[in-house]
Amino acid sequence: MSQFTQILLKQRPDGKPFGAHMFDVVKKDLPEISADQVLIKQTHMSLDPAMIGWMSPDTNSYIPRVELGEVMRSSGFGEVVASNNPNFAVGDKVMGMMGWTEYFVSNGKGINKVQAGVNAEMALAVFALPGLTATQGLFNVGKPKAGETLVVTGAAGSVGSLVGQLAKADGLRVIGVVGSDEKVDWIVNGLGFDGAINYKTDDLEAKLAELTPDGVDVFFENTGGPIQQHIYNRMNIHGRIVVCGMIADYKVGEPSPGPNWINLIKKRVTVQGFAMPDHYGEVPALLAKLTPYVMQGKIKFRTHELAGLESAMEGLNLFFTGEHKGKLLVKL
Amino acid sequence: MSQFTQILLKQRPDGKPFGAHMFDVVKKDLPEISADQVLIKQTHMSLDPAMIGWMSPDTNSYIPRVELGEVMRSSGFGEVVASNNPNFAVGDKVMGMMGWTEYFVSNGKGINKVQAGVNAEMALAVFALPGLTATQGLFNVGKPKAGETLVVTGAAGSVGSLVGQLAKADGLRVIGVVGSDEKVDWIVNGLGFDGAINYKTDDLEAKLAELTPDGVDVFFENTGGPIQQHIYNRMNIHGRIVVCGMIADYKVGEPSPGPNWINLIKKRVTVQGFAMPDHYGEVPALLAKLTPYVMQGKIKFRTHELAGLESAMEGLNLFFTGEHKGKLLVKL
Repeated sequence: MSQFTQILLKQRPDGKPFGAHMFDVVKKDLPEISADQVLIKQTHMSLDPAMIGWMSPDTNSYIPRVELGEVMRSSGFGEVVASNNPNFAVGDKVMGMMGWTEYFVSNGKGINKVQAGVNAEMALAVFALPGLTATQGLFNVGKPKAGETLVVTGAAGSVGSLVGQLAKADGLRVIGVVGSDEKVDWIVNGLGFDGAINYKTDDLEAKLAELTPDGVDVFFENTGGPIQQHIYNRMNIHGRIVVCGMIADYKVGEPSPGPNWINLIKKRVTVQGFAMPDHYGEVPALLAKLTPYVMQGKIKFRTHELAGLESAMEGLNLFFTGEHKGKLLVKL
Repeated sequence: MSQFTQILLKQRPDGKPFGAHMFDVVKKDLPEISADQVLIKQTHMSLDPAMIGWMSPDTNSYIPRVELGEVMRSSGFGEVVASNNPNFAVGDKVMGMMGWTEYFVSNGKGINKVQAGVNAEMALAVFALPGLTATQGLFNVGKPKAGETLVVTGAAGSVGSLVGQLAKADGLRVIGVVGSDEKVDWIVNGLGFDGAINYKTDDLEAKLAELTPDGVDVFFENTGGPIQQHIYNRMNIHGRIVVCGMIADYKVGEPSPGPNWINLIKKRVTVQGFAMPDHYGEVPALLAKLTPYVMQGKIKFRTHELAGLESAMEGLNLFFTGEHKGKLLVKL
């Protein structure tokens, strides 16, 4: 094989469904690697909601946007197939921000070897952005205490499903908000959540009241949408709201309004937005916090795999429809 | 004088202007004090926006509501006129929650002697709820740093005027939002703010952009209202929003919506509501923090005095019209 495929960003999101019209699919010659470089064959790419932000025209975000004509940014898992770098050997399994490309050349910076026994799915679904985000947001922002009640939106998603399981392992009552009965079943019977709300079909206010009889102490927000106000209304005194994602509002021109702030005074509630790029220096500490939960078998996950590099282009729409079941991956 | 006047709450706020229809003005016989008691002649009562909350039907607030038939709650300043309590002597100047009453009987609990040299106006305008609130909210929630920009709403109000002066003394750029040109003049030329916005007449977005060229790091919110969204839009990365009051929304049936939370993620902003009853244990530390600013002459204030106990009933409306100029007091 002397050629491989890359996908470049051609057009920014315009409110319409994502797809091939926004990208250039290009063939490139497989490069020779120079001193200190490694050549990686990517086997699995991660699709994450954060990518929507990276593609947006906004230059004021927490991580530089992807410029038009650049390889679309993503994290991935792969195998070293050639190495002039003493830190990497052919056959090493590695992770890093490789982008939408079948092969990736690196000087080793930002590429990390994966521990033996961790496969691509676990690496990308747990030990990458989802797990780091869940750990930082839940423990360092949400400050959960045993006996408290946590409500997480996007609860079957890559971050939400981990947040709920971590909180459950620490003795909280955990309620998840999802968008299908299949996901209700998965988070309750598969992951052990104490309850679930289907935001598309349930009476939100009544169901929340039933499932959170003692109110809500930690609200982990991944989605936005109309249920936000209902959860907000049930916040307890000194409650914490962790704002991690607002997928319901990413594509709309005029974002929907949020809750009035009077309740923040009455209940002395803190609402805090966070994003992982602020915390890359804390990754070792976050992994040290997360790993024991995984080792003790307290973290389950499932993946939703798309096939082939080009499937990523339309795959991004799944974040808006919520039709995927599990961490979204592209298998190359 | 063997009789004195008290005012009892008869009816909760109903969205109409405050006034005599909500209260019972009653005459009482001056009591004999028993062992350990003191009799205080109140000379000045403080009117504070928090009183609106104390009168509301809401039982879920941070301080118990005033029940119908009870003396309306307020803090005040007075003089001991009789004492069976070894800690107080006739002639002592004292502060405390005495309520809407000309005379107050106490066992001494919750009544504090006022330092020599501090008159009633300074006691109630600086060393009572306004100064404690400003100190707690600015320093412990807002965490200001020299060189940052702070915007405070209700900037000519009892709390806002102190917040701005404290921040200015610590080297911040301070912009105040007020509701009249007279107040613009007072906070800029009287208090030394770097700029002011008249929310009733200025082009809010343009004026804010002009006055905060480097964005906003600390937003101290006392009022709510349409300017909230504009200040929110200018928050810098890692900005802090201190939610202290929302006077614009206290009387409306349906509070106006707040800002969408996407910006909290993009800028990693924290929005925190607080209320002083959580911090009564910290009052000595707060006073220790505040006092040096006062001693160094960095804190100016002005009072707006109403005359006579019964003037309090309609005086509360001034919080909504903003027509008062300075800390609202009732002189008895």
